[in-house]
Amino acid sequence: MNLPIRRLAIVGTGLIGGSLALALKQAGEVGEVVGLGRRRETLEQAKSLGLIDVIAETPAQIGDADVVMLATPMAQMQAVLRDISPHLGERTLITDAGSTKCDVIAAARELLGAKFPRFVPGHPIAGAESNGPQAARPDLFIGRNVVLCPQPETDPAATARITALWQATGARVDQMDAARHDRIFAAVSHLPHLAAFALVDELAARADSADFFRFAATGFRDFTRIAGSSPELWRDVALANRDALLKELAAYQGKLDEIRQAVEKGDAAALEQIFSRASKARRNWGNE
Amino acid sequence: MNLPIRRLAIVGTGLIGGSLALALKQAGEVGEVVGLGRRRETLEQAKSLGLIDVIAETPAQIGDADVVMLATPMAQMQAVLRDISPHLGERTLITDAGSTKCDVIAAARELLGAKFPRFVPGHPIAGAESNGPQAARPDLFIGRNVVLCPQPETDPAATARITALWQATGARVDQMDAARHDRIFAAVSHLPHLAAFALVDELAARADSADFFRFAATGFRDFTRIAGSSPELWRDVALANRDALLKELAAYQGKLDEIRQAVEKGDAAALEQIFSRASKARRNWGNE
Repeated sequence: MNLPIRRLAIVGTGLIGGSLALALKQAGEVGEVVGLGRRRETLEQAKSLGLIDVIAETPAQIGDADVVMLATPMAQMQAVLRDISPHLGERTLITDAGSTKCDVIAAARELLGAKFPRFVPGHPIAGAESNGPQAARPDLFIGRNVVLCPQPETDPAATARITALWQATGARVDQMDAARHDRIFAAVSHLPHLAAFALVDELAARADSADFFRFAATGFRDFTRIAGSSPELWRDVALANRDALLKELAAYQGKLDEIRQAVEKGDAAALEQIFSRASKARRNWGNE
Repeated sequence: MNLPIRRLAIVGTGLIGGSLALALKQAGEVGEVVGLGRRRETLEQAKSLGLIDVIAETPAQIGDADVVMLATPMAQMQAVLRDISPHLGERTLITDAGSTKCDVIAAARELLGAKFPRFVPGHPIAGAESNGPQAARPDLFIGRNVVLCPQPETDPAATARITALWQATGARVDQMDAARHDRIFAAVSHLPHLAAFALVDELAARADSADFFRFAATGFRDFTRIAGSSPELWRDVALANRDALLKELAAYQGKLDEIRQAVEKGDAAALEQIFSRASKARRNWGNE
């Protein structure tokens, strides 16, 4: 183990960055936590909540950190990489918490240059319906999956250290090909968000939408819970993971067409077959 | 109040029928509960669980009930109406718990003949992810909505009595036009079920589906929870509510197309507008 970390820099001190800081502090695995971000208010809040110890006024001030965690919204990742790249110390490791990986890796390869081997692309799979520093909690990652997507150039020692960092929060750490990561999360996360937003927006736009929402029950509540998520976050994810998401959307729309045709024809056997396979798969998954 | 009910007949002693019997028993609003159903095993189980007091061997044995509740799967409603119609006593009221109303009303109008004014079409909005007698519980309807769709012919006294019956379980009772009922529930219940079945079946059919399910997290869990529902129940609902469901499916597919086109074009503003409207509507609904 290379931990504890003497100095950890968190860029973006919201739910993910803040929870990581809290978890590592609670585990006694980190010395000082420095916060960097666009909004002064968020940084002040993160400091008063004890997520960070010091507010960095400029990117230069995080240069001597052992580890820099990029936990900003997806749309800012490129700008942040550009800002911090010139200031990174000789031994500083960089990692991120972005929901998509191919686009972040491409940006990091371009912008970090010779420092790219010290970048370990990562994705902690943890709920994000609430956000901001006040949502941070030390147990957010316990039992959750974290996927790392090291590249051919990535220093294995850097990967080992970021693996240990996440394990210290209670997370399970896996490695995966970045393109495969993006396809899997397009299917099990990004597409469901878009599908839930679609249903709610379709109903909300109706003149008599109140009657629909009034009689919506537990099934609707569960199906649409993720439609309450951050519009900006999901806009950015959808665009960052465009190619994989379009493939998954096409597959989903194809399956909906198949169901629509079965309903049109009154094909009870086809409907039962689809619903039975799905119900069995969902119940098996639920029992794992 | 015309309660208590001297003799209540439940046709279909599963979650809904069984819970109604338990709730009315607990409220001291019912004397004897008679159960009728296709499967002897289910009836025996319902009796041993205390949901029903007596098993009816034939439809003739429920003829002297004050109220007959039809709580069978949708697909059996027509056959049950045909079976019991000749045996219904002069003052017996009939009601049902079907998830769709236009089709049940059409069948009842045809099959009950002169007794149709004593039929009060109803729909208790209560979760049905578990089913069977063992899932029944006396508090299932507390605070839930029950929609009644009395017809022009329906005896107002019958409607009043069925209203009181449901109110005794703790439910809120509303009246609604049957076609409007079917459209609303197509949108907020039937379509979400089909959409959840579609996503899970699409993923489950893949050779590498285990990798997808492995990284599915809380968003996927909530979105697909209803995909674990009964395939037979939802096959029947989809076919019973075919016309309204096809309209809602078309609207939903149109919205998904709109989102897909915005992703294709990289139209961040369009995505943010859709997601923002949906997120705001979902959060407002959640706070009600």
